Formats: sequence, structure tokens, C-alpha cells
Amino acid sequence: MALQQLQNAHSDDQMQACIDNCLEAAQVCEWCADACADEGEAMARCIRLCRDVADIASLHARFMARNSGYHRELGEICADLCEECAAECERHDHDHCQACAEILPTCAESCREMAAA
Amino acid sequence: MALQQLQNAHSDDQMQACIDNCLEAAQVCEWCADACADEGEAMARCIRLCRDVADIASLHARFMARNSGYHRELGEICADLCEECAAECERHDHDHCQACAEILPTCAESCREMAAA
Amino acid sequence: MALQQLQNAHSDDQMQACIDNCLEAAQVCEWCADACADEGEAMARCIRLCRDVADIASLHARFMARNSGYHRELGEICADLCEECAAECERHDHDHCQACAEILPTCAESCREMAAA
Amino acid sequence: MALQQLQNAHSDDQMQACIDNCLEAAQVCEWCADACADEGEAMARCIRLCRDVADIASLHARFMARNSGYHRELGEICADLCEECAAECERHDHDHCQACAEILPTCAESCREMAAA
Repeated sequence: MALQQLQNAHSDDQMQACIDNCLEAAQVCEWCADACADEGEAMARCIRLCRDVADIASLHARFMARNSGYHRELGEICADLCEECAAECERHDHDHCQACAEILPTCAESCREMAAA
Repeated sequence: MALQQLQNAHSDDQMQACIDNCLEAAQVCEWCADACADEGEAMARCIRLCRDVADIASLHARFMARNSGYHRELGEICADLCEECAAECERHDHDHCQACAEILPTCAESCREMAAA
Repeated sequence: MALQQLQNAHSDDQMQACIDNCLEAAQVCEWCADACADEGEAMARCIRLCRDVADIASLHARFMARNSGYHRELGEICADLCEECAAECERHDHDHCQACAEILPTCAESCREMAAA
Repeated sequence: MALQQLQNAHSDDQMQACIDNCLEAAQVCEWCADACADEGEAMARCIRLCRDVADIASLHARFMARNSGYHRELGEICADLCEECAAECERHDHDHCQACAEILPTCAESCREMAAA
């Protein structure tokens, strides 16, 4: 019931879905940035983009959870970052990179929709 | 499948459950801290504790997602904070306070278990 | 000497000045958001804006410190937020609100310049 | 004058010095984690510790700025992390590692003192 109340606190299901997508993106990027550190300097760009996604997606989720007046502006950055990070990750065969490449586009799409809502 | 891979990256289901609990705690505390701002100075302590939980639970989830060597230390603080915040919130009838009081003890318990694992 | 090296790691003094301004803005907004919680519901908007500034300015400083490819985008949001928060704070006589109103415009200006650099 | 007010908001100069030390530690660790990504898998441990210091020192500074009831607990973790990170960094000749090794012990010491105050 408490979770239901939490979800009802958002104006609609779209925002809760975007929060969930951002939190999943942040998790997979924390994993990928960490794992890439063991795989040499070829992964430097992947580490950098994953760190940025993890920071921005986490904060975007929190701004939505408290219905901040600036969640849309942060959502635009989050969408841009997720797209750039997914494009980098899909170039690499590591499990964590492939997981990023699969998860981030969904996050980017929902952030773009929330920013325009 | 990508989500499955993400979950498999953790040593066991216990860590993923704790991550999920922390992220839910952070969301409900963002909502409660924000909503309490409209309800006067009697809610000052609730705002302060909810802000601290939102910050610590979010970071604890990220430390677990990247399997940081310091997730246990942060988990102990997260458990202490969730317990203190739940005790404060259950004194107030607002929907958001009641939701905090219901959600936070589960987070505290799983953080305590992860810290001891 | 280490501090000198740190500063030299940035392309120019402008970025270090902007980092310093953001970190000062974050501190004064943490103080103001916290103090406003004791002063009743008239300060709700001030609490909200100060929380957002504290989060965004802190992250903007970190993005600059690691020379993230997205520091400019975050700098634009930081400048907008600092301006809106300063306008709200200058309406209130509390010491913390007046400190915000005095400090935030400098941060906004330097963020705007960094975003355009 | 506003900065003076900000500093007066803290109970004493010791806390402001610890905030400044934490914010400097966070900056140097952001720089070091980022730069190490270009230097191969031998730097993996350094990246991980620097990321953790950057996160914890930033949040510890914010907890002190708002005089959170949990700043001491976070200060203990911050001190432990700074010590472990400095020990790792001093093993490497890179400018950024040497800057970390020089800056972090001061932060560790002030966090330890604040935690005991």
C-alpha cells in the first residue's frame, strides 16, 4: 500500500516509469564503469560516459521523485548522455557494455518524453 | 535479459533486494521531505531526516551496484538513519509520513543484513 | 604545491573560479534549506530551490573537476537555478536567505560564462 | 560579508576547515579517477578508491554545511577512505596520484577530528 501511495504521488504512471528507467540506467552504468576499470585504456571513454550517466540519471530520478521544477531540464541532459553512452557501449563485447547498450535507449526515450510532457 | 545480467553481476539476490529497498526509501523520502515543506515548522525534524535518508540510501545503492569496498560501512549509517526517520515519521498522520514509516524499516533491515554479510 | 597542480589540471583559472563559486553556492544553500525548515511554510519555495541548487551546483563542480563532456549543459541549469533561487531568497530577511541572495548571482554568472566558453 | 555569515553559521572554524578539506579532496579525486582511466588496468584500484572518496567527501561536506546529525558517522568513513586512497596513490608516479597522496592525509585527519568533536 505504501508503494501504491508513493506511485500515486506522481501525476501519472509515466513519471514513475521514467524514475524506474533512470535508476536501472544508473545501476548498470555503475557496474559498467567499475568493470571497465579492469579492462585497460581502450575503455576510458566508456568509463567516463558511464560515470556521467550514473550521476545524472540518479539525480534525475530524485528530482522527479520530489517533483522539482527543474526535472525536465535535467531529463534532457540525461537523454543525451544515455544515447551517447549506449552508442559507445555497443562497440564493446563485454557483458556489462552490452547490458548498457540494451538498457540505456529505453531510459533515453522516457527521459525525452518526460522532458516534453 | 540485460536486467537479468545486471542482477547476476551481484553476488546474490540479497544485494539486489537491498539496492531496490534503498532506491524505494530514497524516493519516498524525497517525496516526504518535499511535501513536509508545505506543512510548517513542526515537520522540520522530518524534513532533515528524510533529506539525509534520501542522500545516504541513494549513495548506498550506488556503492552496492559497483560493489565498492565501503558499501558495508555506508549500509550501517543507512540502517541507523532509516530507523530514526521511520520513528519520527510514524508520529505524523500525513500520507507521505505514513508511507515513510511503512517503507523504511524494511530498508533498515536489509541494510543491516548486507553490512553483516 | 599539490593544490597548484590541481589548479593547473584545469585549462584555465576561469574553470577553477567557477568550481569554487559552485561549491560556495552549494554550502550556503545547504545552510539555507536546513535553517528554513524551522521557519514555517512560507519558506517552502526557498527550501525547494535551495535543495535543487545544492544538488546541481555540487554535481556541476564535480563535472568540471573531471572535465566531463557535459559540464556546459549542467552549467546552464545551474545558472538558471541560482538566478531563480537568489530572486526568491532576496524577498526574505533571514540571514541565510540574504547570504544566498548575495552569493548566488556570482555563481550564476560564472556558470553562464563557463557554459559559453 | 555573506561568506563571513556562512562561516559563522558553523559552530567553529574547525568545521569550515574540514568542509574545505573535503571539497579539495573530492576535486583532486575526480581529476585522478578521470586521468587514471587513460593509464590502463594497473590503475583500477586507484580509480575505484578515488571514485569512492569523491562521492563520500562531497556528501560529508554537504552534511557538515547543513549540520546534519549524521556528519560524524560519515566523517569516519571519509577518513578511512582518504587514508586507503592516499596509500594507493603514493605508489604511482603520475602527477594526479601524487597530488592525491599529498592532499588526502590532511582531509583524513580533519575528518577524524570532526568525528570525535
